[in-house]
Amino acid sequence: MEMSSKLLERAVAEISQLPGIGKRTALRLALHLLKQPAEQTQLLTSALQKMRDEIQFCRQCHNISDVEVCEICANTSRDRSVICVVEDIRDVMAIENTNLFKGIYHVLGGKISPIDGIGPSQLNIVTLVEKVKTGNVKELIFALSSTMEGDTTNFYIYKQIKEYGIVTSAIARGIAVGDELEFADEVTLGRSILHRVPFENSLKSS
Amino acid sequence: MEMSSKLLERAVAEISQLPGIGKRTALRLALHLLKQPAEQTQLLTSALQKMRDEIQFCRQCHNISDVEVCEICANTSRDRSVICVVEDIRDVMAIENTNLFKGIYHVLGGKISPIDGIGPSQLNIVTLVEKVKTGNVKELIFALSSTMEGDTTNFYIYKQIKEYGIVTSAIARGIAVGDELEFADEVTLGRSILHRVPFENSLKSS
Repeated sequence: MEMSSKLLERAVAEISQLPGIGKRTALRLALHLLKQPAEQTQLLTSALQKMRDEIQFCRQCHNISDVEVCEICANTSRDRSVICVVEDIRDVMAIENTNLFKGIYHVLGGKISPIDGIGPSQLNIVTLVEKVKTGNVKELIFALSSTMEGDTTNFYIYKQIKEYGIVTSAIARGIAVGDELEFADEVTLGRSILHRVPFENSLKSS
Repeated sequence: MEMSSKLLERAVAEISQLPGIGKRTALRLALHLLKQPAEQTQLLTSALQKMRDEIQFCRQCHNISDVEVCEICANTSRDRSVICVVEDIRDVMAIENTNLFKGIYHVLGGKISPIDGIGPSQLNIVTLVEKVKTGNVKELIFALSSTMEGDTTNFYIYKQIKEYGIVTSAIARGIAVGDELEFADEVTLGRSILHRVPFENSLKSS
């Protein structure tokens, strides 16, 4: 896209590097910033720059945090013997919103994905195995997405911690609460029948 | 959305100020920047900041430009007596891409829209009327979008320049080239019948 201004062209090129944002959307965003007061651009760029430069990761769970040990890990009322293994901060936020998990998390920072060049060494797996080695962990809950990458990652970690004999579990897959059976895909419906739960348990909604 | 990091939270809040970007997308973009090398964020923020601080508008047509008079206005082979009135740089780019317009542009910078608090004084209308007053303009082509705001703006300008007796025209509305009649909306189809053109003219596709 050739433009009458190299400044605009460079800004559009940089914005369109972001995932899911094409040239047209990038141009729309750039023109929006030009119409708004200069302070808005100032606030945006300084917030981005400050985030990138000063962001920290919790020393224990590797979640994004402003302090050395995040709020969840620092909370003494949480059960340190149950660790939920997740991909990133979004999963932590989603699970925290349910208010049903009282253990702690371990954020891997991604999934093993040879296509994207992500191997086990780029993920926070060593520190997880180390936590298990201490003997203080009773259960590991795998909460990665059920894709090939997620399954591979789960299995890779499982192999490394198997010998320590702790309980490992995976979050339940099945028909979402409120969903109609007829619209469910076969894999999900099949799993929900295979992994059916005692009826009394199913009454506990929270 | 409460997050474990205020830095991330502020970045997400700023990104989601942009039009069409919600909190979830903003979080996705912020996490993307955190995964990429710090240089990418640096490039993005400096491009945005530089654009906002140093952007200039052409003294003649008010289009975005890096120099005082833009390339189109400075081009002596273009017909200065035909002015195409458009909303913003995107319209200029779209018309330039057709390679069929040899006149010059006048960028209004928006449309009259009382709901958004945009009155005629915020648009580049005075300088347009002044150009017409000089007597060097033969034709004004209105190329604003055919919304209520566009029509209002067209009419506002038309009233101001009527007395100078120049030719005024509006771009043709009708069925797009290659479109099927059966799927066209009635207003467009109705207009395309009312404003039909001599058959010989319709053969000129470019």
